[in-house]
Amino acid sequence: MNKLLDCIECPEDLKKVKPEDLPKLAMEIREFIVDVVSKNPGHLSSNLGVVELTIALHYCFDFKRDKLIWDVGHQAYVHKILTGRKLKFPTLRQYKGISGFPDKYESSYDPFTCGHSGNAISAALGMSCANEILGYKRSIVAIVGDGAIGAGMSLEALNHAGDLKKNLLVILNDNEMSISSTVGAFSKYLNKVRTTPLYTDLKKDFHNLLNILPVFGKPVGKTLEHILESIRRGTTPGQIFVDLGFNYFGPIDGHDFGILIETLHSIKHLDGPVLLHVITEKGRGFEPACQNPTQYHSAGKFEVCDGKITVKDQKKISYTNIMGDTLVELARTDHKIVGITAAMPDGTGIVSFGKKFPDRFYDVGICEQHAVGLANGLSVDGLKPVVAIYSTFLQRAYDQVFHDICLQRNAVVFAMDRAGIVGNDGPTHNGVFDIAYLRHLPGIILMAPKDGNELKSMLKAALGMRKPVVIRYPKEDIPEEGLSPYCTPVEIGKAEVVREGNDGVLLAYGAMVCRCLQAAEKLKKKGIEVTVVNARFAKPLDKELVLDLVRSHKLVVTVEDHVLMGGFGSAVLELVTDEREDANKIVRMGIPDRFVEHGSRNQILEILGLDENGIASTFIKSLELADIHNQFSMARKRSLAI
Amino acid sequence: MNKLLDCIECPEDLKKVKPEDLPKLAMEIREFIVDVVSKNPGHLSSNLGVVELTIALHYCFDFKRDKLIWDVGHQAYVHKILTGRKLKFPTLRQYKGISGFPDKYESSYDPFTCGHSGNAISAALGMSCANEILGYKRSIVAIVGDGAIGAGMSLEALNHAGDLKKNLLVILNDNEMSISSTVGAFSKYLNKVRTTPLYTDLKKDFHNLLNILPVFGKPVGKTLEHILESIRRGTTPGQIFVDLGFNYFGPIDGHDFGILIETLHSIKHLDGPVLLHVITEKGRGFEPACQNPTQYHSAGKFEVCDGKITVKDQKKISYTNIMGDTLVELARTDHKIVGITAAMPDGTGIVSFGKKFPDRFYDVGICEQHAVGLANGLSVDGLKPVVAIYSTFLQRAYDQVFHDICLQRNAVVFAMDRAGIVGNDGPTHNGVFDIAYLRHLPGIILMAPKDGNELKSMLKAALGMRKPVVIRYPKEDIPEEGLSPYCTPVEIGKAEVVREGNDGVLLAYGAMVCRCLQAAEKLKKKGIEVTVVNARFAKPLDKELVLDLVRSHKLVVTVEDHVLMGGFGSAVLELVTDEREDANKIVRMGIPDRFVEHGSRNQILEILGLDENGIASTFIKSLELADIHNQFSMARKRSLAI
Repeated sequence: MNKLLDCIECPEDLKKVKPEDLPKLAMEIREFIVDVVSKNPGHLSSNLGVVELTIALHYCFDFKRDKLIWDVGHQAYVHKILTGRKLKFPTLRQYKGISGFPDKYESSYDPFTCGHSGNAISAALGMSCANEILGYKRSIVAIVGDGAIGAGMSLEALNHAGDLKKNLLVILNDNEMSISSTVGAFSKYLNKVRTTPLYTDLKKDFHNLLNILPVFGKPVGKTLEHILESIRRGTTPGQIFVDLGFNYFGPIDGHDFGILIETLHSIKHLDGPVLLHVITEKGRGFEPACQNPTQYHSAGKFEVCDGKITVKDQKKISYTNIMGDTLVELARTDHKIVGITAAMPDGTGIVSFGKKFPDRFYDVGICEQHAVGLANGLSVDGLKPVVAIYSTFLQRAYDQVFHDICLQRNAVVFAMDRAGIVGNDGPTHNGVFDIAYLRHLPGIILMAPKDGNELKSMLKAALGMRKPVVIRYPKEDIPEEGLSPYCTPVEIGKAEVVREGNDGVLLAYGAMVCRCLQAAEKLKKKGIEVTVVNARFAKPLDKELVLDLVRSHKLVVTVEDHVLMGGFGSAVLELVTDEREDANKIVRMGIPDRFVEHGSRNQILEILGLDENGIASTFIKSLELADIHNQFSMARKRSLAI
Repeated sequence: MNKLLDCIECPEDLKKVKPEDLPKLAMEIREFIVDVVSKNPGHLSSNLGVVELTIALHYCFDFKRDKLIWDVGHQAYVHKILTGRKLKFPTLRQYKGISGFPDKYESSYDPFTCGHSGNAISAALGMSCANEILGYKRSIVAIVGDGAIGAGMSLEALNHAGDLKKNLLVILNDNEMSISSTVGAFSKYLNKVRTTPLYTDLKKDFHNLLNILPVFGKPVGKTLEHILESIRRGTTPGQIFVDLGFNYFGPIDGHDFGILIETLHSIKHLDGPVLLHVITEKGRGFEPACQNPTQYHSAGKFEVCDGKITVKDQKKISYTNIMGDTLVELARTDHKIVGITAAMPDGTGIVSFGKKFPDRFYDVGICEQHAVGLANGLSVDGLKPVVAIYSTFLQRAYDQVFHDICLQRNAVVFAMDRAGIVGNDGPTHNGVFDIAYLRHLPGIILMAPKDGNELKSMLKAALGMRKPVVIRYPKEDIPEEGLSPYCTPVEIGKAEVVREGNDGVLLAYGAMVCRCLQAAEKLKKKGIEVTVVNARFAKPLDKELVLDLVRSHKLVVTVEDHVLMGGFGSAVLELVTDEREDANKIVRMGIPDRFVEHGSRNQILEILGLDENGIASTFIKSLELADIHNQFSMARKRSLAI
């Protein structure tokens, strides 16, 4: 039997499909997605949930002219498949393949390159305003999950949209999950909406009641009017959106093409802001993902037949899990430790802490700002909050780290995961700015472990300090065998010389230490003996050691998995210049000034020259320049001696 | 007659005042505040609005044990006067005087040093959670204005608090204003709450109705139950808060001691999250401020008798006003310019643009994240959004500048006011991190004008580029006479040599240029001839010129009104090192790594050594070191020649 999907290259082709054939198409798309993602890991559950919704949207709108804006965007696979990217879909999230998120440089159907949460309504409202200023007639549609709609930015935008009254359709894709279960009062409210008897039913009841009443005079008429209005307000599902100025429709079944298409057709020409509440099921159509949507949110490879997830190397463990396990260990004896996550209990590894210590654990939803503000309040009387968060998502709370933590001199620990190149998720998820956006905050301590043991030590050390501390570590698996059950102490602002040689220094930060050690081995084979230093701290720097390295070596190469602008290397440069040592001996290695594309972490690091080979070859080139410089210095010393 | 206020040093003293004397005390406090603020400018209207509320809170709670958290905090004067700071109050906002905001280092009655908006509920919720973990019995009270409650962070925290059900009292101080009028659907909703007939009235009506009805059987009973429930939901004022899990009380009159005290006493022991909606009047008790609360929000000096505001130097104009006027000028012919502010139309000078072009102007409320997200949407089809914002408040939208603007390569202009030392508002308001938190974002352009004419030119140039641009300028008045009606063009990445000399370079950014010129005059008197360069751009740097300066001079001193860590000087250092020129010639001047206290802008700059004298003296010291270094270089050149 021919596949319907074979005939669909673009939304125009989709429009030719008969309505009764759409469920078949949906099934084919699900199979296609499951097949690709099983081999080529990506976001599964959320995409399986929006198959009918996405098809219906492209069926009812013309997104060449109209605009479709996804919030977060990891659920845009169906949209990609329907908008000319079907053939490239198997390259999903691979280097030079298509992105796992909407990408404006990939397709004109993606007006917004995105990957963070809560941005869509603002973007859509801006486009609605532009419609009016420019006189454009086009529909603007934003799709927001029930998790992302609770992000502060979404709520700000809803509030503004409800006031401005521009034409705008917000689709609330309600699957009762963000990545894990959605939390917050708003989510409970939505749940109530789902189960409330509909206004129409009540109105019928009320009319029945009226029919058996005698006729009343005017005062009672006014009472009745009040009562009717209050019934309307009290029983409209989604009254909260009505109160915010939206025209609310729903909740409707997001897997029923008939209802979806009828509803979209009937509301698409309405004036003013409209919220359509659609109930979908994460993982729909693939039983293992339905049963466990969190596990299949962004699973590794798996078997299509039974969903069995390919087991990763048993001998390896991620920094994420080491953090999670260590926190549980420490919290057993330290009852002041509190855990906080912003909708990422699994991703950040703090899930086990939450299970063991539910009374000291807060999942605040996709609300990074509040996560940090909550940590402020918690820390005031000596509790020790640990905010487990990704580097890129802490960006959302930069101002709170400044205002609610550093200005207060609060003892809060940020367990900052996904620091550095994150890999397949690409530029929205790379955690490559954190040193630059945090280092200037007075009183903050920035550290990065060279390995799993050091992460344990640093977490323990951080919890012993009465200061704001950020520990950055990458999305990386490391050998489990070397893990020690004991935490060796880490002293604030003290670096560690891990290898000694006389031909210059590799001064590495965090995950770059092991790569520098490998580079040193390579260099040794060429007869070059390098000192390798595990910097441990980007703030405070180990001033004494750094200055000593500069004095005693002709070359100091800083190496970091972070942008060069304002990074660890710049901190070293600042120190060396301020102390009037020879800054010309410093060479900085890191990420150049551009957004870094998706691909595997190691592949991207190699491309950036931040793997062992790249480091070794940059070192050699720098050494040649340093030798020339060194001749000057020798001459300088001679001239001084004269 | 003796003053009641004379006998009050601390909240215990207040508790001895008879309830019937409280209005007299309120009057005295108002007089005291008006008197102090008339001579010593500060926030007036908001403080006059919360006199009764603050007194009532201290009357009903014990904030030695209980916690009172102000949102924003510029309305905490009454609180300060009642908590041991009455005698120091006349030093308000002066150097070494008391802060204009709650300050934990000033009083144990201030658990949270604050100045930004939307942080209080998070902080308070954190303290409530800490109560539970630590077994503390104390009340936690957050006071949030109707403007600040619409900030995303507030909404995130409300959502979480309503879910967690910890004991927490949120007081909504509703004066229908943030600094200007509050905007947004939420605000309209609150207005509706204020004017809705109360549930109790309706219930009475309904009971009257029931009394004249015959008795019904079960099905109608069920209907009635539904109807009663829906009436309750539909007519409870503040149902939106109830939907979010709060127990709602109000609205009550915030100037009636009887009601305030009775209500606070009756709700203080309630379990779970409670929202008390209090209606207050900004400027209450001082007629000019009531009439024009925005003007008296943070007025200059004024006459107590009639509120006449002391006119500032007519021959001077602020950067703020130049930006506002220029934007209006440019927008007359360029119909694509759109203006955005986050509740600061007056503070940012964009108010006149809003009046002239209401169809292209958006005040989004205290929602910086959404302001930037909206700019994204607006710019997609070629409109040119100008986001007028303070440096410190753009911190709230750092992630959006990254994700919604730079990653999209959107042409959005940030007119970034209050950059650098802001003066009397102190550390929460200093705009001293912006280069550090923005420079690493790929594709962004950072510039700063040396004067008013250049601000005009830069604004025009920025609107001609198709890139994200940030123009930073300080809170400073400059002579109006030098202002030209014409905009001279500014070329991207081109600096300007404004004075030439052979004894080294002052490489200045923005507002530091004029101070460097003054320093150069001073140095000239000592026989030192300095080149002064107006850098104009922190990104991209004028590579050619900077390298040329380093090559041709023995000393290059960078000067910026910004932190040294990751600032303009670091950018210069990076460039010089990367290009293998002599980085040892660079000396960086700027703000050290600590939070900078309040005081007048010029006073603080002087203390930091960033006035003409400080710059001249640092230059002389650096020159001495450079001369030594120069001898080395000469020797180096000689040795090369050999």
